[in-house]
This record gives sequence, C-alpha cells and structure tokens, in this order.
Amino acid sequence: MMGDTAVLGRLAAVCMLVGLSIVASADEQDVIDYRQHVMTTLQEQTASIAMILQKKAPAENLGAHAKLLSLAAVTAKKTFDTKAPGGNAKPEVWSNAADFAKRMDALVAAADDQVKATGNAQTASAKNQAVLAACKGCHDAYMTPKK
Amino acid sequence: MMGDTAVLGRLAAVCMLVGLSIVASADEQDVIDYRQHVMTTLQEQTASIAMILQKKAPAENLGAHAKLLSLAAVTAKKTFDTKAPGGNAKPEVWSNAADFAKRMDALVAAADDQVKATGNAQTASAKNQAVLAACKGCHDAYMTPKK
Repeated sequence: MMGDTAVLGRLAAVCMLVGLSIVASADEQDVIDYRQHVMTTLQEQTASIAMILQKKAPAENLGAHAKLLSLAAVTAKKTFDTKAPGGNAKPEVWSNAADFAKRMDALVAAADDQVKATGNAQTASAKNQAVLAACKGCHDAYMTPKK
Repeated sequence: MMGDTAVLGRLAAVCMLVGLSIVASADEQDVIDYRQHVMTTLQEQTASIAMILQKKAPAENLGAHAKLLSLAAVTAKKTFDTKAPGGNAKPEVWSNAADFAKRMDALVAAADDQVKATGNAQTASAKNQAVLAACKGCHDAYMTPKK
C-alpha cells in the first residue's frame, strides 16, 4: 500500500503530465488555427476571382485578387512547416512531405503565373483553371472534408 | 370588367416586373457576396496578425500578412462602390457615404502604415492598434452584428 505522501506525489506527477499535454495541445491548436486563417484567405480570394470570371464582380479588381492569392499561397505553404495534423489536414501532409511540398510549390507557381495574366479575360480564365486544379489535387489527397 | 386578353396582359406585366425584380435582387446578392469574400479576407488577415503579435504564429510572416491586409483594404473600399445594403452593411454606408469613405481611407492608410513597421515588434503592435481602431470605428457605425 502507498502512503498518503506517495499518493500525493503520483497525483502531482499526473497533474504535471496532463498540464504539459494541455500546453502542447494548445500550441498545436494555434498552428491549426493560424493555418486555417491563411487557407480561408485563399478560399475567399479564389471565390472573389471566380465571381469576376463569372462577371458577377468588377473585372478591374482581378489583378488585386490575383496578387492577394499569390501572396497568400506563399504564406500557406509555410503554415504547414510545423507538423500539426488536425483541422482539415490529414497526417499524410507530413508523412508524404515531399509530395505535399511539390504540390504547394505548384500552387505558388500557378498563382504567380495568374498574376501576369489578368489583363485578358480568356487567358485569365485558363490560368485560373490551373490554380484551381492545384487546389483540388492537393485537397483530394491531403484534406479531410470540412465539418 | 376586363376581358381575358386584358387580364393576361396584366399578368404578363406583373410577371415581367417580378422577373426584373428577381434579376436586380440576384445582382445585389452578388455585390453582397463579393463584398463578404473581401471583408472575410480582412478578418482572416487581422486574425493572423493578432496571432503573430501574441506569439502564437511565426513572426517572420508578419510582413506578408501586413501586405495582404493592405492590398485587401484597398479592394474592400471598392466593394462598397455599388449600393447594396444587406449582409452586414447598414444602409448608412451609402446615406453617410462621405463619412464612410473617410473611414475606409483611414483603414487603407493605417494598413499601409503597418506594412512599413513589421520589423519591430513594439512598433508593429502600435501600428496594428491603429488598424484595429479603424476596423472597430467603422464596424460600430456601419455594420450589423453577424448572424
């Protein structure tokens, strides 16, 4: 049988472990929250561009949205630097890190390419298809559906 | 008493009016949807910056977020060019257009100012307070709470 002191000691050790685990988990949640702020930005910007290409929003803003999307894509890649599965990110993001990085680089390149082609509606639409294909390919492989 | 032809004529006229009104209303909804994509971008970017200033996200990304916010703020002002009350925008956005424009210009200026001050944590925080004050002042006057 354990004495009271030993029981208290074990309890304290358990509390410390639980405490540490809560801290680690809060950090991971921060990584996930931050990532989602950036991914939502990408989503809102692709939605803005889609509305312009459907003539539901002013064409003169296309250049600004393409630039926003391109900047956000560069930042989006960085938000996956810290391993934190959860939110909508499958663990494969980190277990297939090389493929994931290649796909994010392809998105950044497609978004960058789109910035240069916002003056012509037809070219802009083609470039946007490339961006959306990069989004979809990566989401199909690495994203769990949104709850 | 109206003859059948007259009744049909009136019915057709009413259908046309209803039809036209549906079209106009779809257009207004587009304006609102587009505006909300841009305003949500602002929200996600201010949230990203807040996480960095709270040391919950990488400081090295602050410059990118400040630039994103600044670009999005310029576009945000334009999304109110077309009068379309609704979503979270009060009719006063358009009835007090001069004051609203002044506030949006102040946001653009504060966001632009923030871009130049991302190297120093203390200055960055002060500049961010100015951005958030511009957001809050305008929201208090012109935004209905989100449903």
